[in-house]
This record gives sequence, structure tokens and C-alpha cells, in this order.
Amino acid sequence: MSSDVVVTMDLQLTPEAGPHFARMDASGLEGTRNFPGCRGVQIVLHKSDANRFMFIERWESEDAYANYIKWRKESGQFQALETMATSIKIDIWPQTIVTV
Amino acid sequence: MSSDVVVTMDLQLTPEAGPHFARMDASGLEGTRNFPGCRGVQIVLHKSDANRFMFIERWESEDAYANYIKWRKESGQFQALETMATSIKIDIWPQTIVTV
Repeated sequence: MSSDVVVTMDLQLTPEAGPHFARMDASGLEGTRNFPGCRGVQIVLHKSDANRFMFIERWESEDAYANYIKWRKESGQFQALETMATSIKIDIWPQTIVTV
Repeated sequence: MSSDVVVTMDLQLTPEAGPHFARMDASGLEGTRNFPGCRGVQIVLHKSDANRFMFIERWESEDAYANYIKWRKESGQFQALETMATSIKIDIWPQTIVTV
């Protein structure tokens, strides 16, 4: 069973930003993947909303994720994301009940 | 890059059902994991809501997931889940933009 902390970010972008975001490649996540405590990130696109994305992130600890968001805010990148978004819902799921 | 279809189920249970659900073990997911096209399921518990769970499921195709839900409904198990829940939000994410 994984001991990772799962973080989900349900990201609703503007119709202008969505198609651009969907063309992101792995280089856009280098800073995340290389951040201390990051164990992996997957970004998926919604079936029926071309502007809605889900980030499924795995972190070593809640502290590691908090440090990461602090860095993204200090660099202004989180705020840049906010300007493209109509809604950003971040949820933290520290406990895995079951994995199969 | 994964070609799985990701399905998320954001499950808000009643305060009576939540603690019971949190004690689930892998046997509760055997029927899911063994269903044709299922590639894995993780259930995680929210940081600040003991009655909120996220299912992160990986399926071979959207059809496989549709068949699975049909089976869960025909067996009455989906309806049983509904009686324990105050909200069930299922989202289908067929396309992975990036994985790192």
C-alpha cells in the first residue's frame, strides 16, 4: 500500500486558456517533479469539458506539498495559473484506505 | 505515458457511514479489480473531512467502465452506496496530458 500523500487539483480554465494548457508537455512539470518530496504527477483532461483538468499528485508528506505551493506562489507561477482559471480546487488526501 | 482512462469518484458519505467505510480492506475492491478492463483503484481519505473519499480508478477504456457501473447497478451495490452517501460525483478523464 502506498504511503504517499495524494493531492488533487481540479482546475477549471477559461475557454481561452484550456486548449493552450492541453498542449503542455512534460517540460511544464519539471519544476514539480524535481521538487523535494514529489513522487509523481499526472494531469488528465475531462471527457466532456475541454477546459477542465485534474492534477493527481503524489507527495512524500503534506509538508513537502506545502513547501512546493509556497515556492510556486513566491515565484508568481501560482498566481499566473489563477489568471487563466475560473476555479481551482485543491484537496489533500493523506491516507490511502486501499489500493488494488 | 499512460493510456488508461482515469475515473474519479468524489464520495461524500453520511457521518454514520464514513468511519465504517474507512475500515474497508482490499477484499471490498476485489469485484472491481477483477472486472474486465480494470487496471487499478486507489481509495483515499480527505485530510479534513472523515466522511469524504476519493476513488482514483484506471480503466482500459470508457466502455469497460460503463460495463462495470452497469454491473454494479444491476447487482444493487451502487444503490447501496447511494443510501450511505450525501453526494457522489463521478468524472471521466480519458486523456492524459502529461505524466511525470
